[in-house]
Amino acid sequence: MDNFINLLGLIAGLLCAASFLPQLIKIRKTKNTTDLSLPTFVIFCLGVSIWLIYGILKRDGPIIFANIVTLTIAVNVLLLKIKYK
Amino acid sequence: MDNFINLLGLIAGLLCAASFLPQLIKIRKTKNTTDLSLPTFVIFCLGVSIWLIYGILKRDGPIIFANIVTLTIAVNVLLLKIKYK
Repeated sequence: MDNFINLLGLIAGLLCAASFLPQLIKIRKTKNTTDLSLPTFVIFCLGVSIWLIYGILKRDGPIIFANIVTLTIAVNVLLLKIKYK
Repeated sequence: MDNFINLLGLIAGLLCAASFLPQLIKIRKTKNTTDLSLPTFVIFCLGVSIWLIYGILKRDGPIIFANIVTLTIAVNVLLLKIKYK
């Protein structure tokens, strides 16, 4: 059961992390971020950073992995939002 | 220490969930979602749903709470993206 729960966590983490890839690709293509909310991505990156600390303190593998990948992509979206605003 | 970790999880969850509120408000104001990626919000909502199941199976309060709130707001962003695309 524990293996199944961990697998579920990994799938959820991969989906959430991967979800921001199409957004990143769209911005790189259109160089337009008018409709994206800047506070959304600032607060989201902050939240994901704290999730990462939470995962490290709980030694929870899927949470650590998911939040490292999500943070990497979300920070890139944030930087492009600042660049193209 | 456990209380501190749970508090950290609650803060992280609140930030991630709340982060999509400015996006939701922005869309309601501008009625424009051109720059938002549809696949991003479809995959994100799916990922958050699986995180919720993960949290329920692990009986992890902060994860359950955070993902219920995040899912509620993210689904609203997704519905507006479909409505105004």
